[in-house]
Amino acid sequence: MDFVQKLRHIQRKNNSLLCIGLDTDAAKVPEFLYAYGDPQFEFNRRIIDATKDLVCAYKLNVAFYESAGEHGWYTVHQTLARMPDDVVSIGDAKRGDIPSSAERQALLLCEDWEFNGTTVNPYMGKDSVEPFMRRRDQCAFILAVTSNRGAKDFQYLRVNGKPLYEQVVRTAKRWNAKKNLGIVAGANRPAELKRIRGLAPGMPILIPGIGAQKGSLEAAVRYGCDKNGELAVINVGRSIVYASSGEDFAARAREVASEYRDKINRIREKYF
Amino acid sequence: MDFVQKLRHIQRKNNSLLCIGLDTDAAKVPEFLYAYGDPQFEFNRRIIDATKDLVCAYKLNVAFYESAGEHGWYTVHQTLARMPDDVVSIGDAKRGDIPSSAERQALLLCEDWEFNGTTVNPYMGKDSVEPFMRRRDQCAFILAVTSNRGAKDFQYLRVNGKPLYEQVVRTAKRWNAKKNLGIVAGANRPAELKRIRGLAPGMPILIPGIGAQKGSLEAAVRYGCDKNGELAVINVGRSIVYASSGEDFAARAREVASEYRDKINRIREKYF
Repeated sequence: MDFVQKLRHIQRKNNSLLCIGLDTDAAKVPEFLYAYGDPQFEFNRRIIDATKDLVCAYKLNVAFYESAGEHGWYTVHQTLARMPDDVVSIGDAKRGDIPSSAERQALLLCEDWEFNGTTVNPYMGKDSVEPFMRRRDQCAFILAVTSNRGAKDFQYLRVNGKPLYEQVVRTAKRWNAKKNLGIVAGANRPAELKRIRGLAPGMPILIPGIGAQKGSLEAAVRYGCDKNGELAVINVGRSIVYASSGEDFAARAREVASEYRDKINRIREKYF
Repeated sequence: MDFVQKLRHIQRKNNSLLCIGLDTDAAKVPEFLYAYGDPQFEFNRRIIDATKDLVCAYKLNVAFYESAGEHGWYTVHQTLARMPDDVVSIGDAKRGDIPSSAERQALLLCEDWEFNGTTVNPYMGKDSVEPFMRRRDQCAFILAVTSNRGAKDFQYLRVNGKPLYEQVVRTAKRWNAKKNLGIVAGANRPAELKRIRGLAPGMPILIPGIGAQKGSLEAAVRYGCDKNGELAVINVGRSIVYASSGEDFAARAREVASEYRDKINRIREKYF
């Protein structure tokens, strides 16, 4: 099954565009989990078990695992193994390098951990992204316009009268022969998101910036979806996984995730 | 000691601008090293011991270690511990992310592994780079113009009549309040390298692309150095570390490294 099919399938099955960000900070997990050998995994396991019927995807920012020391590599493996097979896994790593090195980056993310999707920085161009777009069932999400303040430094520079992020989207479309590229666009950039969806009507768009980063959920759904009200992958991290710091954290995460899914679906009904 | 001082000190002490790229592929190390528990480290250890008086720096592309599995994290630690304190260590990771995630990337590279320098992708802007430029003794090398083919896709787009990579260099100069930023520019881009050195006369420039990637050593030295014939960090990887695949690999690496250092110094004498 190619990536877009897989994504549509799970978005329909779970009636959800919600992606939960598992950027698990070992220092922020509830204290009672410290009794376990791998508190990061124990936290992820319980979040996944409590929310897996409410999401289309989970996104792991791999920096949170790499920085946990040698065990982090294994925690990612274990976390991925816990996810249902039909839910999309995204390795948020923002990689990209000269081909011989990008091969090694992709070896880790796409073959060893075997994420269904990865995030890739476009600055080094096509051959730096290619190792992440080898397989039709794996998607490379290209950074276009990001949710941080620094996005303004380069992404909006005018190139032939258009902002650079648009050039990135147009170029990614040209590279998309296998239909396995996606775009990253921040939820706090509604006008840009609308423009990107217009340029790339059939590509998945990964939309971070909801919740702690205060992006607009309404705009993310309205402008991020394709014409069927699908293919937007709306990431919510901290406000779900850290909804409670007590023993009820997984149950609270389920409640908040359920609220997000329902809110998203009400907006979908309004516009699609 | 700040980073530029440290770099000048070792370049003078070892009379060398040479940086050896330790992008060690576990599958390419000589067979007799397989008898050791950690063949990657064993390879690095012998290369370092054989060449440490001939270089100003070692650069590790961390993808080669991350992709080796959970032990890779430790191999990087061990390799860094083997380097003399006054030799510069560069973690070539091409990172950069929203601040909360970039913090975690930097935690690994700058605090845990404690590289003296890291490579950072500029696309996400200042706040994505900031965690790598906290300490005056640690340098963030910003990608400007890279040695791969894909460099042409975005780095040369015209922004206000100038190529994007120039805008990156000008912006990095503005960010450089702590004098701990550097630039990455490929050796196979001599005109661009000359332009970058003109724009940033006092910044270290990390220059990959010599050897297997066929960049010009003459241009790298002539255009990459500051007015004193220093601050160019000329990386040579595969053609040194894989000069022999036999038991003499470290001795051969020393010979080839010595030849590179001498060639570089003859070019320095010619122009500085």
